[in-house]
Amino acid sequence: MQCPAPKFEFDVITLAHGSGGLLTNKLLESGVFDLLKNDVLDQHHDGAFLPAGGNIAFSTDSFVISPVFFPGGNIGELSVNGTVNDVAMCGAIPEYLSLAFIIEEGLKMTEFWDILLGVKFAAEKAGVKIVTGDTKVVEKGKGDRIFVNTSGLGRLHPAAAIDMQNIQAGDKIIISDNIATHGIAILSVRQGLAFETSIESDTRSLNHLTIPLLDTFGKDIHLFRDPTRGGVAATLNEIVQERNVGIVLEDNIPVDPQVSAACEILGLDPLYTANEGVFMAFVKADIAGEVVRMLRQHTDARNATVIGTVVEEHKGKVLIHNAMGGRRVVHMPVGEQLPRIC
Amino acid sequence: MQCPAPKFEFDVITLAHGSGGLLTNKLLESGVFDLLKNDVLDQHHDGAFLPAGGNIAFSTDSFVISPVFFPGGNIGELSVNGTVNDVAMCGAIPEYLSLAFIIEEGLKMTEFWDILLGVKFAAEKAGVKIVTGDTKVVEKGKGDRIFVNTSGLGRLHPAAAIDMQNIQAGDKIIISDNIATHGIAILSVRQGLAFETSIESDTRSLNHLTIPLLDTFGKDIHLFRDPTRGGVAATLNEIVQERNVGIVLEDNIPVDPQVSAACEILGLDPLYTANEGVFMAFVKADIAGEVVRMLRQHTDARNATVIGTVVEEHKGKVLIHNAMGGRRVVHMPVGEQLPRIC
Repeated sequence: MQCPAPKFEFDVITLAHGSGGLLTNKLLESGVFDLLKNDVLDQHHDGAFLPAGGNIAFSTDSFVISPVFFPGGNIGELSVNGTVNDVAMCGAIPEYLSLAFIIEEGLKMTEFWDILLGVKFAAEKAGVKIVTGDTKVVEKGKGDRIFVNTSGLGRLHPAAAIDMQNIQAGDKIIISDNIATHGIAILSVRQGLAFETSIESDTRSLNHLTIPLLDTFGKDIHLFRDPTRGGVAATLNEIVQERNVGIVLEDNIPVDPQVSAACEILGLDPLYTANEGVFMAFVKADIAGEVVRMLRQHTDARNATVIGTVVEEHKGKVLIHNAMGGRRVVHMPVGEQLPRIC
Repeated sequence: MQCPAPKFEFDVITLAHGSGGLLTNKLLESGVFDLLKNDVLDQHHDGAFLPAGGNIAFSTDSFVISPVFFPGGNIGELSVNGTVNDVAMCGAIPEYLSLAFIIEEGLKMTEFWDILLGVKFAAEKAGVKIVTGDTKVVEKGKGDRIFVNTSGLGRLHPAAAIDMQNIQAGDKIIISDNIATHGIAILSVRQGLAFETSIESDTRSLNHLTIPLLDTFGKDIHLFRDPTRGGVAATLNEIVQERNVGIVLEDNIPVDPQVSAACEILGLDPLYTANEGVFMAFVKADIAGEVVRMLRQHTDARNATVIGTVVEEHKGKVLIHNAMGGRRVVHMPVGEQLPRIC
């Protein structure tokens, strides 16, 4: 094997390397992508477009959220919704999921059952089938109750032309609903940080929103992305860097007032907080209003809003207008705001 | 959600529930399969045949082996080979894999790199592409260095008619190579059980063996199975129970002399010991000799042997001839002979 280890910038993997931020990028770019290079993986997308059969999207995600049960859902629902959404973000119609458990010895069967119910409920709601699975058990202290991996397959939507390369200056960026809800819901139940709130995770499948948009607007939708780990800030920074454009955000990004208040108390910026039930669409400017109107008809997207614009200027940077009329840079998050948020 | 928990026979998940033996069956049959019921999952096969696109096999496996590095390989190679083999056992041609890591904080990057090399090496050897991935990191003490999930996709071989239902009395059972090697290699390095030996895991991909067999013998090959967790005993017991036939094994199952000696010292039965690099083929009786001859031409199957026959009698039971001319029942393993063997 002729692959000497590259010179790494770090010796040890830390929680921040799983955060979805700068350090995750560094980990992947430090050799992982080079080492496993092939034309499909080179797309650097959350899901894989497979040339075989022409039109299949394939995506995988492991879920290590803590706690396993949280306001608004459990790891079972999250695991289905997360992968369904990764497939949906490819412009595909999610159809089949695999389901693999790594269980820490001692998990109560009633808890396992509740997690399975979460899987079932979410799969039915998303219209996908669980078609294959695996179960492993590790000793007490070698895991953390339960980890779940789902991999998903979907047929590419015939009208979809989702591709980072299609993004151009002038494109409008739409967010489908309030941001930061999932992250704050999880934080609200974390040991030592619990506070009184009725905030629930927004974990949900998004394919029932993306498919009608593709039906109606086809190739005028240039990109879908769900801002999970690292939040809106990480996702947009990835895009400006890869596409070498700039983004200007308005000061109108929808946040639930309770979530906003919690962010303020905790000193968190909603832009950096994880989401599970919202997506961003980059669309041709002249359809943006119609897309928002269509989304708002659905209860899962009633706060859909145009939040920004792709620009030629300040390439590689995301700027946001603030209330005083100024602008500040929204940086790529470096590490983990909230570990194990999904 | 109208799914009250069924009455479970156990309250807590133990290591034995991940053993691939009777308790794994009980766990899956205690409601998991019923709960997630659909026509594809109902095949109860390690991989899923997907009707969409006609001819795709889809399989998932999580790998939690301890230690992560072992004689003959590491968790990276194992993770690729394991899923490649699951897809191959479906009678399919493995093509694409997903790759998802759950890393315990503190894993050394050089170790991670070696694992990635294992992935790369095994993927190249098997002729599959890693097309999508995911990385999560958990806190120290919440995992065990690294867990890996791979999910695999393959095109069904056009001549394949692999189906448990095709097994019939008279079919010959062929093993492709020596058994018990992987299990004993792992055991030899487990803390407290180390002993002097040069036994190496037989982890390897099997698609370069199964595909030529399908090319040549097509539908006369009724079933492929790789006897991983629970060994030959668990795999054959699953088959006799599901198909309601009997099996008689000869006293000629190939085991490397070193492995055999180690089994004796440790009080282990090779029939119950995990394998990673061998498979069993159930074939029409009149091609058995030819199949063995063809397999033996390959270095990965030079000990291929007909080890038994499917019979009408003693349905649901696996019997084995012993050296004294008697026969004993080979039972389904109840729990875990070796935890975390894959």
